[in-house]
Amino acid sequence: MTDQLAELRTDTAIAPLPDANKVYNVGVYGATGYSGQVLMSLLKKHPNTRIVFATSESSKESIDGLELVPVAEAPLASADVVFLALPHGVAGQVAAQAVEQGVHVIDLSADLRLDTPELYKQVYKHDHPAPHLLPAPFGLPEFNRHKLYNAQYIANPGCHVTTVLLALYPLAKNGALTADPIIADTKTGISGAGKALKLESMFAEVYGDVRPYNAGRQHRHVPEIEQELHKLQTDVGQLIFVPHIVPVDVGLLATVYAHVKPGWDKQRIQQAFEAAYADEPLVTLLPQGKAAQMKQAVHKNNAIVAVTEMVGNTVIITSALDNLRKGAASQALQNFNAMMGLPETTGLL
Amino acid sequence: MTDQLAELRTDTAIAPLPDANKVYNVGVYGATGYSGQVLMSLLKKHPNTRIVFATSESSKESIDGLELVPVAEAPLASADVVFLALPHGVAGQVAAQAVEQGVHVIDLSADLRLDTPELYKQVYKHDHPAPHLLPAPFGLPEFNRHKLYNAQYIANPGCHVTTVLLALYPLAKNGALTADPIIADTKTGISGAGKALKLESMFAEVYGDVRPYNAGRQHRHVPEIEQELHKLQTDVGQLIFVPHIVPVDVGLLATVYAHVKPGWDKQRIQQAFEAAYADEPLVTLLPQGKAAQMKQAVHKNNAIVAVTEMVGNTVIITSALDNLRKGAASQALQNFNAMMGLPETTGLL
Amino acid sequence: MTDQLAELRTDTAIAPLPDANKVYNVGVYGATGYSGQVLMSLLKKHPNTRIVFATSESSKESIDGLELVPVAEAPLASADVVFLALPHGVAGQVAAQAVEQGVHVIDLSADLRLDTPELYKQVYKHDHPAPHLLPAPFGLPEFNRHKLYNAQYIANPGCHVTTVLLALYPLAKNGALTADPIIADTKTGISGAGKALKLESMFAEVYGDVRPYNAGRQHRHVPEIEQELHKLQTDVGQLIFVPHIVPVDVGLLATVYAHVKPGWDKQRIQQAFEAAYADEPLVTLLPQGKAAQMKQAVHKNNAIVAVTEMVGNTVIITSALDNLRKGAASQALQNFNAMMGLPETTGLL
Amino acid sequence: MTDQLAELRTDTAIAPLPDANKVYNVGVYGATGYSGQVLMSLLKKHPNTRIVFATSESSKESIDGLELVPVAEAPLASADVVFLALPHGVAGQVAAQAVEQGVHVIDLSADLRLDTPELYKQVYKHDHPAPHLLPAPFGLPEFNRHKLYNAQYIANPGCHVTTVLLALYPLAKNGALTADPIIADTKTGISGAGKALKLESMFAEVYGDVRPYNAGRQHRHVPEIEQELHKLQTDVGQLIFVPHIVPVDVGLLATVYAHVKPGWDKQRIQQAFEAAYADEPLVTLLPQGKAAQMKQAVHKNNAIVAVTEMVGNTVIITSALDNLRKGAASQALQNFNAMMGLPETTGLL
Repeated sequence: MTDQLAELRTDTAIAPLPDANKVYNVGVYGATGYSGQVLMSLLKKHPNTRIVFATSESSKESIDGLELVPVAEAPLASADVVFLALPHGVAGQVAAQAVEQGVHVIDLSADLRLDTPELYKQVYKHDHPAPHLLPAPFGLPEFNRHKLYNAQYIANPGCHVTTVLLALYPLAKNGALTADPIIADTKTGISGAGKALKLESMFAEVYGDVRPYNAGRQHRHVPEIEQELHKLQTDVGQLIFVPHIVPVDVGLLATVYAHVKPGWDKQRIQQAFEAAYADEPLVTLLPQGKAAQMKQAVHKNNAIVAVTEMVGNTVIITSALDNLRKGAASQALQNFNAMMGLPETTGLL
Repeated sequence: MTDQLAELRTDTAIAPLPDANKVYNVGVYGATGYSGQVLMSLLKKHPNTRIVFATSESSKESIDGLELVPVAEAPLASADVVFLALPHGVAGQVAAQAVEQGVHVIDLSADLRLDTPELYKQVYKHDHPAPHLLPAPFGLPEFNRHKLYNAQYIANPGCHVTTVLLALYPLAKNGALTADPIIADTKTGISGAGKALKLESMFAEVYGDVRPYNAGRQHRHVPEIEQELHKLQTDVGQLIFVPHIVPVDVGLLATVYAHVKPGWDKQRIQQAFEAAYADEPLVTLLPQGKAAQMKQAVHKNNAIVAVTEMVGNTVIITSALDNLRKGAASQALQNFNAMMGLPETTGLL
Repeated sequence: MTDQLAELRTDTAIAPLPDANKVYNVGVYGATGYSGQVLMSLLKKHPNTRIVFATSESSKESIDGLELVPVAEAPLASADVVFLALPHGVAGQVAAQAVEQGVHVIDLSADLRLDTPELYKQVYKHDHPAPHLLPAPFGLPEFNRHKLYNAQYIANPGCHVTTVLLALYPLAKNGALTADPIIADTKTGISGAGKALKLESMFAEVYGDVRPYNAGRQHRHVPEIEQELHKLQTDVGQLIFVPHIVPVDVGLLATVYAHVKPGWDKQRIQQAFEAAYADEPLVTLLPQGKAAQMKQAVHKNNAIVAVTEMVGNTVIITSALDNLRKGAASQALQNFNAMMGLPETTGLL
Repeated sequence: MTDQLAELRTDTAIAPLPDANKVYNVGVYGATGYSGQVLMSLLKKHPNTRIVFATSESSKESIDGLELVPVAEAPLASADVVFLALPHGVAGQVAAQAVEQGVHVIDLSADLRLDTPELYKQVYKHDHPAPHLLPAPFGLPEFNRHKLYNAQYIANPGCHVTTVLLALYPLAKNGALTADPIIADTKTGISGAGKALKLESMFAEVYGDVRPYNAGRQHRHVPEIEQELHKLQTDVGQLIFVPHIVPVDVGLLATVYAHVKPGWDKQRIQQAFEAAYADEPLVTLLPQGKAAQMKQAVHKNNAIVAVTEMVGNTVIITSALDNLRKGAASQALQNFNAMMGLPETTGLL
């Protein structure tokens, strides 16, 4: 970390700015999805937010007295900031409207994550809904919080992306990785697949099973991970990524196998991780040799990272988080906090 | 049990008839549902069956080289017997066609279970698809196997029905129940809800939950249970039935609270259960004071029954089975065996 | 509810007393058990508590910088109040020492729950460790919070006890129950069995199973439930209680079948529940006809209660809570709040 | 595969030898552990076995009328063959006694798996109990069934060993692997940890968690895998092995990342797998591009293997089995069948 960054980070994480008592009007798009539900409960307890509207296409019920409305009927202009837990394609359109009206945006969808419309189209198979917003500040505060301060809009990363990048960040930022392929084998709860009705998300299918899917380079999170990784170190190898559905509702564990250049031994690696995460309030680094377990992160707002073992020049890093929290909703709030200059942990500890 | 019945049961359960080596051509309607899948695997191992066709509306794959066809294209006449794991309403139509063509029918749907079209319409809210087939022999062999021998068609009971009736049969047939309400509190795996895509069947919903539904007298299995119970004892009380979805894929446990007339103590009740089940190969009676556990019956073809405890004149009976086996597919085969005069356990032990 | 009680309750639940900013020194006995762990996390966030020591016989690790010590080495006198998440027999001894030294006690064990040493010995098969403390104020604030204000010590009820009593309280306090047996069929997560190493608590045993145990009147919570029920209505019937282990870690659902006197119909029953719970911040009453689900209460500090259905004079009430929270640790804090005159929900919403 | 081997395999797999009707007297050591229980149920249905005794140190109950005895009281000489589902250290002693008395042995423990007492001591930290029996025929029939015919004793491989070796066998036997490290990331049910009472095997611990353990080269199965791999190809890289406990009772999935020499593309790799497994009755090879799922193998006696994806020269192979069946008990029977010249699938399909 450069001194400048460190300074920014330390300052912000500790000292609340003068508007710490300000209450922002918040609109939540997609309040009844799995991420949206957690987001709503976190916003409810956040001292600086007041939910002024929430949308749902599927439900007309009200939440704590707040009537749910369809996206099309949401009073966008009544909000200071909106959180978009919408499908990709739709989220970008709302983001563009919000930005145009001077409303701040935290986009939990994939629409603002990739830096170019070309890459987006290649991955998502349709034109980008708001290319003029790209590239957006990428909302992984542990990497680049200085880009988030006062941002008009922020792209909240995918859950796998946060998990895998937290495992690789201290190595990549120090240029420690070789050009050999990096292997990320992840185990994830089914809520990551959302509430869409699919046979493979039914209880009787997931129960008792571990199911690999989109193995290799097929998953949409691969280009997102590589894009950010390359900003830290240009000469890294390809990512080989195999996610597995495991029979839990929430939770995400990545077991990452990375190869390091000569001179990087266990101790030096652990030191790099300590330098990166010792002061991070929402990343817990375990002692060297321990392994992150999924459950340590479930229902929590922090990620768990561990330098677990080293064999030859292959280091095994384990990284866990709650896919609906540090992988989605609580990270969105952390980004909101950074955006507004609030202490990043506000409403999250 | 009357002497006559006992004789029939004993004879059949033990002595295979001369056509024990005959192989029947079998058609399976609804081969890709949860019950259908188990039925296919059981039929495959049954020494007296050869699957000649199998239907699926959702899949065009083949199973062990057998191409799946839609119901409308099934070569009904090529079968000696068909098993119907179809939705109610549809099953009855196929049953009528089969009977007309002289094909034997084991109907796993609800269509042939209720004795009158009037009761059926009241419960299922549409006209009965084949009223001339009612009343059909009710396929609970432990109750009335003599009605199943040489039957042209048999109604396979619902999973809750089998579980609850096995818990009450030895009491009701001896007239031991009072007119007080009988309470059946059941815990069931989600596969009982089938493969229909519903939010409440999704993994992230069922996981970690226990969910009561259709409490009281709302469940469609209530009239089916009461119909059969009244054939055993006319002056029994109403059934109060509360099923609960528990986070397992298969399995069904009933905890039944019944009230008995004076003179019925633990020992006499246990003796009545022993008289009813001691010789039953597919019902396992536990020693008095034990409780049936769901897992004892899962992936097995037999039910477990126990006279668990008695408080005052309330007896607590626990009863467990695999809802896809003794609650559906293996009971269907047991009924087929009885129908054809084969030893009832053929292909099931 | 008498007017006097209602007044006390309303006042206390709403208006914090002048010492709302006081911080109490708290000692936690048994900090590493399942209840103890939740208690520690709740105390950490409670604005009026500072943990000064925590005990564990099994672990010498520290929690958030606090070194764990054995019970024998705990600096009892340094605490204003102690929470006892200890085995019965041991807890009572510590309670007696604490009371003697003027330290307040919230006892999560069974030692102070039963009103007489004779009943205790009958149930727990050994002499009471501190008979002079009996009877203790029974810590179910929704019943009798007036007895908890300024109490020196409070008996925190068992998890099944809270669940079942919340289902029966509005009926019993109105004398609505008949003398017929009351049936409580409960479904509970395995954490209720604690961390003791037993084969029946192993993952491979509990997984996929539903297991009844201690059916009838064998469970130690039966006399506790009946003792409190009889304080509300003397002429109620016996409790028939069948708990079932279901494959979840936390959660408790009771399905209660109670019989009511003439004149009690659905509406009147629902009104009695509304009168009892409408103002209760930690009991959520569902609309009449709904059913409580386990998951609605899991990881939450409130219980869920519903008047689910009525058949004849049998009313089906469903009641759910988190056995480690409203069934143990958060109820302990609610009791602490009442004891100290703090708003009952302090640290719990 | 050499022609000679192919011949042997084909002959044996298809044609039963003249003693196909012989019934062997079988003794089961360790009948009440998780593997032992499955073994008992498989032996019961095997047409060529009669269980003459079964041992258990923990239980004195009887199984199907067979009284369980402690190891010390087992009538070893009454058996033609014994299956040892005993702890390592103990199993080797019983194996030596059996061999001395001319009794055949299938050892499910680790005692006979490693080829030298020196390696054994290094891994298991105590002297080998029967060094004169080493090296023992290694019971992975798909590799080396010719060594199993008429063997006096066979070492049944570990569950992880079978899973990982089946994923690598077709590559290694063709010398296709580079010297780069091979990564095996496995996900396993908790029954692999046995019935020993440990906190980390308790339901409340395993539920909702994914837990890596013994990462890198710490697991005892690493030398066993490498020993057998080196017999197929000498110049392979080190194995990096990270097992993970997932919340299921049974099942094992390996995701293997191996690097292949130039000239090996997807098609050639798939062909090598087809050549190896097309005729194997207990290994199911999926079409190229598919992934093995844990559930496809659970409660089944066959393993599932798939060449799932290729990125650069890294091939991703997925392999699944039931750790108590093809990973233990059914493989033991397959080995018994091979030993006695019976068709290998006898009692297993």
